[in-house]
Amino acid sequence: MAAPNGSRRIMTQSLEWTGLQKLRNLALAIAATACVSGAGAAAPAPQDQPVKKALTSAEVLAAATAADWRPIDPQSTIYMELPAGRVIIELAPQFAPHYVANVEALARENYFSGLWIERVQDNYVVQWGDPEGKKPIHAAQRTLAAEFERSSRGLSFMPLGDPDTYAPEVGFSDGFPVALDPKLGRAWLIHCYGMVGAGRDNDVDSGGGTELYAVLGHAPRHLDRNVTLLGRVVQGMELLSSLPRGTGALGFYEKPEQRVPIKSFKVAADVPEAQRTPLEELRTDTQTFTEYVNARRNRHEEWFKVPAGHVDICNVPIPVRPHTNTTTR
Amino acid sequence: MAAPNGSRRIMTQSLEWTGLQKLRNLALAIAATACVSGAGAAAPAPQDQPVKKALTSAEVLAAATAADWRPIDPQSTIYMELPAGRVIIELAPQFAPHYVANVEALARENYFSGLWIERVQDNYVVQWGDPEGKKPIHAAQRTLAAEFERSSRGLSFMPLGDPDTYAPEVGFSDGFPVALDPKLGRAWLIHCYGMVGAGRDNDVDSGGGTELYAVLGHAPRHLDRNVTLLGRVVQGMELLSSLPRGTGALGFYEKPEQRVPIKSFKVAADVPEAQRTPLEELRTDTQTFTEYVNARRNRHEEWFKVPAGHVDICNVPIPVRPHTNTTTR
Repeated sequence: MAAPNGSRRIMTQSLEWTGLQKLRNLALAIAATACVSGAGAAAPAPQDQPVKKALTSAEVLAAATAADWRPIDPQSTIYMELPAGRVIIELAPQFAPHYVANVEALARENYFSGLWIERVQDNYVVQWGDPEGKKPIHAAQRTLAAEFERSSRGLSFMPLGDPDTYAPEVGFSDGFPVALDPKLGRAWLIHCYGMVGAGRDNDVDSGGGTELYAVLGHAPRHLDRNVTLLGRVVQGMELLSSLPRGTGALGFYEKPEQRVPIKSFKVAADVPEAQRTPLEELRTDTQTFTEYVNARRNRHEEWFKVPAGHVDICNVPIPVRPHTNTTTR
Repeated sequence: MAAPNGSRRIMTQSLEWTGLQKLRNLALAIAATACVSGAGAAAPAPQDQPVKKALTSAEVLAAATAADWRPIDPQSTIYMELPAGRVIIELAPQFAPHYVANVEALARENYFSGLWIERVQDNYVVQWGDPEGKKPIHAAQRTLAAEFERSSRGLSFMPLGDPDTYAPEVGFSDGFPVALDPKLGRAWLIHCYGMVGAGRDNDVDSGGGTELYAVLGHAPRHLDRNVTLLGRVVQGMELLSSLPRGTGALGFYEKPEQRVPIKSFKVAADVPEAQRTPLEELRTDTQTFTEYVNARRNRHEEWFKVPAGHVDICNVPIPVRPHTNTTTR
């Protein structure tokens, strides 16, 4: 549906694959090569420069081939069913193998079913689990050793190529935003919008996945390497971010009746195929993804006048769309 | 209210002055001086370093004097009354003088009263105004020349001191996050969470304040210098950020009945004093503010194990609290 006529608007942030608006006229004079490295902002190209067609992110995605996309594995996917609908989380076993296995074990013993979203703190996180900490656990573990970071050896890593305030290097690994310290040979997931982690108490090894949270504000990067991230919300984030904020300390709901019940929390592979939501994600190790990042770095939609010349790691939402061709899996 | 016992949590992001939780034990071994410049992340101080007490942001604020705070001027404040409560916007006439004057003129002719919040796009913006663009305007202007940036001359500017992905320099000016290009001698407001701007069409001079938006996700810095920012939400942001997301293109509400009515939109100075919400803001040009930024840069609450060593300009929410001593104004 188009924006209402006559309303002043600002451009879209996220690509909505299912509802892409008509492609806009191109800002021809602003070439992708206007992107500069270093901290200076790029100036608009003068009108007398050679005209070069630069793609918008919508055009990059429209030109992507089937091979640029990968199906999201239902074995590494969680469906959290809320009264408002399904929240889909892609897990990151390559970064938090034991936490991911434990969250799947918790899902398989129905640990979260009947528990609640208990905390919504504005511009920070939404958290769910057992506010009393009393629900019995059977095959799964209550706590695990922290998985804050891992070796960067053997890691698929696509550098962003822009400076970062917090880490020596940032980029993407298999669809996740990642920071890297080449000197230390260590890598860790980044607290971008929608990332999911395991709450803990003061002891670093006191988490395990029985309390989970998702980021719903400006990336709280100070949490990086302080808490185990284990996945990201790939669909349904708006069901979490639009919840009423809690009025207690840290955004906890003060009254039990304010809590939002979790109807079920399951590994997607355990859900009958007809009830699944097959999704695919743009591969972050492709030329198409590099072009997509460039299109985010310098917007070529007509509306934009001053290209940013840079892009923050958390300003590159990784495109996800319905995966229709399930026979190729 | 304290967090429920036994629940695993992650630390608070924003200071809630009226509900500060009990101060936690200090992580004594991690000194504020562990902060490093450059892009490398700071390592935790070894246990055998001299122990130095470092303050948390709550402790910095608790030690602030009355002179560290400034009342927010009701002449530069907007109250937007929604069914859920009052949203308070501090205007920035030092950056967008004509837009601010026009928004105040629009408020004074009751332009926004009876209009709607018409768009809520997840992880991006909430927007309000007249979706049909037909409401008559009397003394105010419908469009104005853009005020994307200003001269940096004469600007009060407190540098953050951390590298920024987008701008040569970033810092604070009279309570607002600001980017600066010393070579060009230009400064501009930054699209941090809660910042308020004036929507426009493709023409840079097609805005004017009849359509306003607030940032409710990760800072969309690519909008910097592409649209006129004119203020920030200093109270009630959670009333905007928790609204249902629109399902139309760009997050517009598809049905008129989904729109959220604006009961009134007034300059605070025009509201009877007994009905005002007096607020004060931590002065950003004080030593206390510098200490507050340091406490955000390296968290010393016991929960944190790895200090970030850096802080993003949009990860420094500027503290605001009720201003009780109105007689000193």
